[in-house]
Amino acid sequence: MEKETKADEEQTQVINPWEVSAKGKIDYDKLIDQFGCQRLDQSFVDRVHRLTNRIPHIFLRRNVFFAHRDLNEILDAYERGEKFYLYTGRGPSSEALHLGHLVPFMFTKYLQEAFKVPLVIQLTDDEKCMWKNLTVEESKRLARENAKDIIACGFDVSRTFIFSDFDYVGGAFYENMVKVAKCVTYNKVVGIFGFTGEDHIGKISFPPVQAVPSFPSSFPHLFSGKDKLRCLIPCAIDQDPYFRMTRDVAPRLGYNKPALIESLFFPALQGQTGKMSASDANSAIYVTDSQKAIKEKVNRYAFSGGQDSIENHRKYGANLEVDIPFKYLSFFLEDDEELEHIRKEYGSGRMLTGEVKKRLIEVLTEIVERHRAARAAVTDEMVDAFMAVRPLPNMFA
Amino acid sequence: MEKETKADEEQTQVINPWEVSAKGKIDYDKLIDQFGCQRLDQSFVDRVHRLTNRIPHIFLRRNVFFAHRDLNEILDAYERGEKFYLYTGRGPSSEALHLGHLVPFMFTKYLQEAFKVPLVIQLTDDEKCMWKNLTVEESKRLARENAKDIIACGFDVSRTFIFSDFDYVGGAFYENMVKVAKCVTYNKVVGIFGFTGEDHIGKISFPPVQAVPSFPSSFPHLFSGKDKLRCLIPCAIDQDPYFRMTRDVAPRLGYNKPALIESLFFPALQGQTGKMSASDANSAIYVTDSQKAIKEKVNRYAFSGGQDSIENHRKYGANLEVDIPFKYLSFFLEDDEELEHIRKEYGSGRMLTGEVKKRLIEVLTEIVERHRAARAAVTDEMVDAFMAVRPLPNMFA
Repeated sequence: MEKETKADEEQTQVINPWEVSAKGKIDYDKLIDQFGCQRLDQSFVDRVHRLTNRIPHIFLRRNVFFAHRDLNEILDAYERGEKFYLYTGRGPSSEALHLGHLVPFMFTKYLQEAFKVPLVIQLTDDEKCMWKNLTVEESKRLARENAKDIIACGFDVSRTFIFSDFDYVGGAFYENMVKVAKCVTYNKVVGIFGFTGEDHIGKISFPPVQAVPSFPSSFPHLFSGKDKLRCLIPCAIDQDPYFRMTRDVAPRLGYNKPALIESLFFPALQGQTGKMSASDANSAIYVTDSQKAIKEKVNRYAFSGGQDSIENHRKYGANLEVDIPFKYLSFFLEDDEELEHIRKEYGSGRMLTGEVKKRLIEVLTEIVERHRAARAAVTDEMVDAFMAVRPLPNMFA
Repeated sequence: MEKETKADEEQTQVINPWEVSAKGKIDYDKLIDQFGCQRLDQSFVDRVHRLTNRIPHIFLRRNVFFAHRDLNEILDAYERGEKFYLYTGRGPSSEALHLGHLVPFMFTKYLQEAFKVPLVIQLTDDEKCMWKNLTVEESKRLARENAKDIIACGFDVSRTFIFSDFDYVGGAFYENMVKVAKCVTYNKVVGIFGFTGEDHIGKISFPPVQAVPSFPSSFPHLFSGKDKLRCLIPCAIDQDPYFRMTRDVAPRLGYNKPALIESLFFPALQGQTGKMSASDANSAIYVTDSQKAIKEKVNRYAFSGGQDSIENHRKYGANLEVDIPFKYLSFFLEDDEELEHIRKEYGSGRMLTGEVKKRLIEVLTEIVERHRAARAAVTDEMVDAFMAVRPLPNMFA
């Protein structure tokens, strides 16, 4: 009986690379315990500030990136003068990205600039071809389209290698896939990812593909002779299972374990029970949304923590824990003082939901407009340049 | 109860790509039923004779290649003037090949010459790295060493592409791997290959790698624009499970099913219960064995169907069904009349085991000496030439 109850309880929160759902709010503390990662506390934020001589990114100051694995080792090494490289990625399953998709890339761009390190970005078109039942051709097309959005985030081509699996799998990368696959049993991936016997073997074959960019030897054109270069992976915490597996295997291959810095999920407009979903256009703000669409989505769908009457609102204030307009502002409103002001005024009921939504619409519109302009400037030649298999001569400069 | 008895009975004969064992003689008729392939009868031998204007290879005349799938369709198409391509391969798990390893290559060389068709030879160094726990480097080295033995069989470099998986997986080949993997569930590979939950996921990922050379689009440098070119696979019948899976999947991808022509196992010196084993040096004649070693192995280990005394032998004759010297001669003694003579004389007891072994030693020594001389002439440059990713301009000439 006790065991069943426990299982029931665990079922209230399902987090893996393909599903993020919770009854009620996601319990990130529980997730940290369950996954076995560490909370990223203020001392890390201060240390990054000191080491990089820059104000830490808003996502770091605001604890959007809230958990890590071995970040201390990366920073220790960096302090000793050793560099590292960044690895992040995206599964290109849809044409248009939403704001949640941009979060890891905005943050990775900051890390690249602040630490002056090379970056590899994996587009898992093979994964999406297999999970979403897209054709190979459509997956490859989406990978290139998404690469434009990623490039629009402002990455430095002289330090960034973007690749799609369909283009790049082979050679040393494939050798590492085989080495990883040898170390992981079927029972193990079932435990980590919850596959069943009716899943196709493409899914079972995939985890090593996402694992091996963690190892510098997968990129001989970049890191030849740098087998001990450490890897830091910025990602949303739902990707943690892949890298638990990777970290488990790494020492058996004589490789360093990759370090991670992991974010909260960017919540859906309707509330914080999950990630935004590409299948419900009204659950998210897309980088392709017009100003009018943004205004309408925020006004109509953004879940409010305000009270049901103005009288009650003035009396009790907004519940900021569940209020989506405030949550979104805490991701994207750069000005710490203004956010603090809104927290106080809205939380105490002096400010109304409508006012907060108005400010949010301004902030989001600016971000989306800026992104749209940047993306429009990304040419096919630029995509080719980022995706060329080439050395990055100034990658640590 | 009935079910258990049946299972017990099935257990007396285990045939899959990694295990060939039987209590007593392998029942090839049962295997044909179980696998669902067809017996290759005399009408095929005659038809090949007619179509190619050449005496069919000894392995075809003697029914060493005894089963097939869709060979009739290949021959029908050939008769209409359509060409096809050949695909065979080897898992490079050991330095030295034994005579059993040479059987498919000797036969494939004949097919290539007789039909004037291109040939792809896959060296599954990735497979052996995963199954035999060899390092990547050692597997790749063995692949190159084995390539020399394969080239020594006399293939025409202008019509032959040899590749190792570690070298070649990527691009269109990897795309096809993903397409195949999408169509095969874990339960399905368990049914076909008998994997268990404790097997590593490298094994589960491998069947698509062996499947995709059956599809011309996996070789864009060879067969670009020839997506409908048919494929014929000469192999030992233990490889049939891979291609059952491949044939099952092919139509769902819009590809032709590969046809197969399948051989008996070349028996161990000790008798016909299994394949020769690389792990017991005395179970096989190696292409590196000296004349002295061949003589000693045949005399000491070759299982005799002769009777236990000369008197009984003269009276009852040799049991040719289990006699290894006679079996080996039926694989390798070219002269049909001489073999027929030995069958009669030895089977009736007029010829003794010692005489038959003496003749076998001569025949095997000649084959091994010829192979050794040919292999010594294979240079690294020749290996590079066969393995270069290149067009084969005269492949149908």
